[in-house]
Amino acid sequence: MADILIKDGYIITMDPQRRVFERGSVEIEGDKITAVGKDIEGRADTVIDARGKVVLPGLVNAHTHLSMTLLRGVADDMPLMEWLETKIWPIEKNLTSRDCYLGALLGCLEMIKSGTTCFADLYFFMEDVARAVEEAGLRAMLSYGIIELGDPKRRESELRAGEKLVKTCQGAAGGRIQTMFGPHAAYTCSPECLMQVKELAKKYKVRIHTHISETQDEVDKIVKKYGKRPVEHLDSIGFLGPEVLAAHCVWLTEREIAIIRKQGVKPVHNPVSNMKTASGVAPVPEMLAAGIPVALGTDGAASNNALDMFNEMKFAALLNKVGKLDPTAMPAKSVLEMATINGAIALGLEDRIGSLEVGKKADIVLADLKKPHLAPLHNVMSHLVYSAVGSDVDTTIVDGRILMRNRRVLGIDEDEVLKQVQATSDDLLDRWRAEK
Amino acid sequence: MADILIKDGYIITMDPQRRVFERGSVEIEGDKITAVGKDIEGRADTVIDARGKVVLPGLVNAHTHLSMTLLRGVADDMPLMEWLETKIWPIEKNLTSRDCYLGALLGCLEMIKSGTTCFADLYFFMEDVARAVEEAGLRAMLSYGIIELGDPKRRESELRAGEKLVKTCQGAAGGRIQTMFGPHAAYTCSPECLMQVKELAKKYKVRIHTHISETQDEVDKIVKKYGKRPVEHLDSIGFLGPEVLAAHCVWLTEREIAIIRKQGVKPVHNPVSNMKTASGVAPVPEMLAAGIPVALGTDGAASNNALDMFNEMKFAALLNKVGKLDPTAMPAKSVLEMATINGAIALGLEDRIGSLEVGKKADIVLADLKKPHLAPLHNVMSHLVYSAVGSDVDTTIVDGRILMRNRRVLGIDEDEVLKQVQATSDDLLDRWRAEK
Repeated sequence: MADILIKDGYIITMDPQRRVFERGSVEIEGDKITAVGKDIEGRADTVIDARGKVVLPGLVNAHTHLSMTLLRGVADDMPLMEWLETKIWPIEKNLTSRDCYLGALLGCLEMIKSGTTCFADLYFFMEDVARAVEEAGLRAMLSYGIIELGDPKRRESELRAGEKLVKTCQGAAGGRIQTMFGPHAAYTCSPECLMQVKELAKKYKVRIHTHISETQDEVDKIVKKYGKRPVEHLDSIGFLGPEVLAAHCVWLTEREIAIIRKQGVKPVHNPVSNMKTASGVAPVPEMLAAGIPVALGTDGAASNNALDMFNEMKFAALLNKVGKLDPTAMPAKSVLEMATINGAIALGLEDRIGSLEVGKKADIVLADLKKPHLAPLHNVMSHLVYSAVGSDVDTTIVDGRILMRNRRVLGIDEDEVLKQVQATSDDLLDRWRAEK
Repeated sequence: MADILIKDGYIITMDPQRRVFERGSVEIEGDKITAVGKDIEGRADTVIDARGKVVLPGLVNAHTHLSMTLLRGVADDMPLMEWLETKIWPIEKNLTSRDCYLGALLGCLEMIKSGTTCFADLYFFMEDVARAVEEAGLRAMLSYGIIELGDPKRRESELRAGEKLVKTCQGAAGGRIQTMFGPHAAYTCSPECLMQVKELAKKYKVRIHTHISETQDEVDKIVKKYGKRPVEHLDSIGFLGPEVLAAHCVWLTEREIAIIRKQGVKPVHNPVSNMKTASGVAPVPEMLAAGIPVALGTDGAASNNALDMFNEMKFAALLNKVGKLDPTAMPAKSVLEMATINGAIALGLEDRIGSLEVGKKADIVLADLKKPHLAPLHNVMSHLVYSAVGSDVDTTIVDGRILMRNRRVLGIDEDEVLKQVQATSDDLLDRWRAEK
């Protein structure tokens, strides 16, 4: 007997054939999907009636800084460097282990409630983030943000911090947690640092999470320092490869897109953050056309200010249409691919997640279609990208475990988390103000 | 004794001083606000506990085509003219009175559930739309879409249709419904038609709702035909004035912005639709800087694909930031003004709605802040624009009447509407396919 049977839903598999079953079922045993399709009979301990609901792979948020939920709405509408230098960085200096744990727990709650089942994080106090992820039940790829600024002493301690996370958390939470090395960017890490990261990643058989070409200013800095654009620079030192997850990738030349493709680098599109910080419009249609499986991410909540991948999908579609003045530039299906199977590929998890297929992990979300803003129903994929919001998700399953049912998150006291987050965030800002 | 007392909420008044009360109350008697502020004592028939909630003026959707909810998701990701010529227009030819009534009722439901209390509509079968608005309890400015294509015979019948709506519906639903004349655009209405509309609007003391400069193609057409850009053309024939509500206004020169300002024309920004149809980015920061009170609208659900003004606010802020590569280009407060008081000004209703002030109509919404994506709370205005979604609204009040409380819409059988909408929309598409 199966553990869970999701019955009679509108199934979007995102499998290689992109099959859709208008009335289908998904069977789960343990942490895995054991059957997907139309005529699944049989019994299960838990039967979820999915009539009037769409069943899809859990969304993959391929780039975020989870604990930055604590800084949501603290500062907006400012020039980027002023925002970073007078608000974000000084406040971050005051972050504690407990802050990051609570910020991460809040972020997990928000993701569970908006249909994200796996995310890639790059931040600080990552062991505490891991603790929140373990408790919340999500799947995650965690990395410690390495910033060395060319200082050999700092490099050493930063690399050790990154290594420590890999040693302590790789495979944690029954395999739900994996780790990466997280060198922040080419303008905050020297070539020596980046290449030591690459060696360490090889040694530990883990991947690398970084930022590339988010702003014009960053490109200018790298060109000035190394005489090459960021992707060219990183390629010339031998840093790039299929294990590199590269957030933003906004300012790319055709030549740089060709390098990304050749080296198998995995770009992550962050449309909301790129718009809010006014960084620019990434050449996503060009990258997809080149066969690069671009993933999608929210970035941190300070520059979004949400972690809702449904919202992110709508922005991804619309930004790239208006950016090209071409309404066909980014169809709904491509966007849904970015948020599911491309995310899995970007994290090297395509054998485990990203689609509803037999043998894959049971990371599944159900969204309720019986809502005025989702009526009438003619094209479910269009609705998911253009009309749905995170709060339409009513059930979230990760690793075969139901984390939310009927909008109720199981095993987390939501009110208590909100209360503690407010207190800890107020206290963080008080400490920062006292220091000024 | 008051009828309703909204107690201890976070009050965003949007009054001339833009006052905010961190713990304030709003008192309602009949259809009007009788008190707003911190120390309101007293009793009321209905007391709404607003602790942990934000209380704000009902949002104003200043440009939509409500019954197009029926076409939501029917066709997306297509070149604009192909989309219109092969899908939208042929399907619309099959619309019936009942279709438009049900489509409008669905749209009303969606707006009530996402915090919109007043909207400006331009479409067909407007008496049926009025019926839906009356039943739903919303406030609306309705106009019949006049398309004459330079044909004098058609002009006559179109003008009579527009006039009939004004005669039958002006002041309907206890004054909640007002009417406008709705000449579609300068490329679908001749100067003769537009000037007859202007005369009729003057005669009946109503306003005018039209589209101006949505696409580059439209501008090219007008330049070719009249030797002038759209705003210049409309100004030269004497059509423009403070009574003209102009949707889109995407492709404007500095000179045209100066004309809009001088003539007191009321532009409506439709960021989601402009992005989805890839029409372009309107010069909204420039218009606001010129002192023009730009309003905000969703356009129809076929090109959005939602009627959620919270979603629209986030898009308005972010599109204009990235459009200018300037994160300060469109702060949260300006966007909230566009969605409230500027909307009221654009519709000539600033004495009645758009802010929480004594003597104004009680059009009020409450949004629940106790949500993971709205925590922690440091800046409510930032949360409303960057983090909130329509479904955070839990209470909607129009004209002193509670239309939704705790997400339950009163007086409308939501399930029944969804069922009927699906059937009528399926039937509409069947009729269109049979005709092909």
